[in-house]
Amino acid sequence: MPFKSIAWESNVLVLLDQRALPHESRYTTVTRYDEVIDAIKTMVVRGAPAIGIAAAYGVCLSVKQFKADPATLRENIKKAISELKQSRPTAVNLAWALERMESALESARGTPDEICAALLEKAHSIYQTDIETNLDIAKHGLALVPDNATVIHHCNTGSLATADYGTALGVIRYAHEQGKKIHAYLDETRPRLQGASLSAYELQAYGVPHTVIIDSASGHVMKTRKVDLCIVGCDRVAANGDTANKIGTYNLALVAKAHNVPFYVACPTTTLDLQTPSGETIEIEDRAGEEITEIGGKRIAPIGTEVYNPAFDITPADLISAFITEKGILYPPYSRSLKSVL
Amino acid sequence: MPFKSIAWESNVLVLLDQRALPHESRYTTVTRYDEVIDAIKTMVVRGAPAIGIAAAYGVCLSVKQFKADPATLRENIKKAISELKQSRPTAVNLAWALERMESALESARGTPDEICAALLEKAHSIYQTDIETNLDIAKHGLALVPDNATVIHHCNTGSLATADYGTALGVIRYAHEQGKKIHAYLDETRPRLQGASLSAYELQAYGVPHTVIIDSASGHVMKTRKVDLCIVGCDRVAANGDTANKIGTYNLALVAKAHNVPFYVACPTTTLDLQTPSGETIEIEDRAGEEITEIGGKRIAPIGTEVYNPAFDITPADLISAFITEKGILYPPYSRSLKSVL
Repeated sequence: MPFKSIAWESNVLVLLDQRALPHESRYTTVTRYDEVIDAIKTMVVRGAPAIGIAAAYGVCLSVKQFKADPATLRENIKKAISELKQSRPTAVNLAWALERMESALESARGTPDEICAALLEKAHSIYQTDIETNLDIAKHGLALVPDNATVIHHCNTGSLATADYGTALGVIRYAHEQGKKIHAYLDETRPRLQGASLSAYELQAYGVPHTVIIDSASGHVMKTRKVDLCIVGCDRVAANGDTANKIGTYNLALVAKAHNVPFYVACPTTTLDLQTPSGETIEIEDRAGEEITEIGGKRIAPIGTEVYNPAFDITPADLISAFITEKGILYPPYSRSLKSVL
Repeated sequence: MPFKSIAWESNVLVLLDQRALPHESRYTTVTRYDEVIDAIKTMVVRGAPAIGIAAAYGVCLSVKQFKADPATLRENIKKAISELKQSRPTAVNLAWALERMESALESARGTPDEICAALLEKAHSIYQTDIETNLDIAKHGLALVPDNATVIHHCNTGSLATADYGTALGVIRYAHEQGKKIHAYLDETRPRLQGASLSAYELQAYGVPHTVIIDSASGHVMKTRKVDLCIVGCDRVAANGDTANKIGTYNLALVAKAHNVPFYVACPTTTLDLQTPSGETIEIEDRAGEEITEIGGKRIAPIGTEVYNPAFDITPADLISAFITEKGILYPPYSRSLKSVL
């Protein structure tokens, strides 16, 4: 693996600062849980699975911060878990990972160091499981990728967004490794350009042929060139199959539908949130307008311009051809198929 | 008018350099026709009608360049016209304006100075007609704008893209001036961000309420907020109504269709090109990949990344609810209605 987005080394968390990519591989050492929150909020680390893993290690860091006072240790760790949960609202993996950490805390016994060891074991296990899960997603996805496939991909869903391999980009990478000739059109993915910077960086590293386009060119590409499928990741899937993912996913799905291009969502089953009945109740994070009006420190719009910057949108279930999970491919009706793998 | 994109002053052409907006109002003086070609290619001046007007004045500049040798004057002007025609391929207004200039040249008689005066008169007339035409478009468009309207607009189609008022943005501005409460969502319009920079600059100057969004957020806005109509300009309309406009227009039209939001194209009848039967034969300009991978001098994508950067796309006639022209609103079937106004 030419890079590692998250690593636990010498008892601290090491994060590849994704804001400096693709030009610089700058690693940041994080020693406190509140620094993890900051890293998640400012998108040093990003991607639903990666955020969950980073937060799990954040819990371990909190033990080290608070272990001097064993009497208040559990209470302080719980407070840290609660704060970590608030760092970003839309992705479900964050809450999922932190619930696992909370359970581990409940059952951990002994000295602060023993509690720390138990929590670290759980965080490592979340990390390892993510790697295996992603590889299983990629293997299942292979069946949906024809030979000589052209695919459109949105945002970044690769090794940088996960522990390794990734979800949607993992399917593309694996198909390439298995000898299928695959060419990926990468939506640049405004406003933060994760497609043009991070996904292009990954596919270049893995030698997968790719072309960057602006997000709004997807229709023109589908109409004038052969496109076989679209594949995206996701941040939360409701019980009926409605899916929250990076802003622009919904437009891509509508455009794919108009061209009869299959639209696949690749995700671990931990992203399925059956507690949420439909997309209508998924909270969509609004981010600062400067993400749109300032690029590389340069201001684009006039001073005082009002901006609306939702970070995610909801793609309704009826635009999704299938979900690719580590437990297999799930087809409609999703209210039944999603339930069957949990 | 707080700014003027094109002016003929003291026998030279003055262009507002749109690449420096919205922060700086830098005017460039152009004295040679080949400088006009350069200004069009590098998008100092942009917008289909504005390009046509600038090219018309470019012909006048060529007379001044070549008038020292009356024997070869006509031949040299014709060469200049031919070169000006090549500066950008997609918009029809450029060819239209230059054909008018060529006719004026054919009928012009007398000394080089008299020929120059005749051509200048024609260029001024193209300029004046554009102002009147745009105001007529805006007046006709008013009927399609409800009170308290929310509209999505793509690219820049205002005073900066024309002699004044503009086409689609002119409809929005005029509706505001007529007391209709109108709010415009402005697609930022990648890759060159004419929406976030130029359209926001214009609407701020005219006091029209507006909000900038990324292009791929249009579906989310239509689904979660009330949107009454979309309105765009265009570069060329084929005989069947297929319309070439800034890349991203097609995606917006597909998204509008999915939400039953009316999708209007505002344009002068000079943009109608009945010689072109359908969108399939309209040439789409490919521009340099750096327009996507470099923003404000900062590189976004890894070195060596392949990019596809079509400047325009084709919106098929069946996605267009009506054309708003200076001669009235044209409804389907377009093969009949477009012909009726020419």
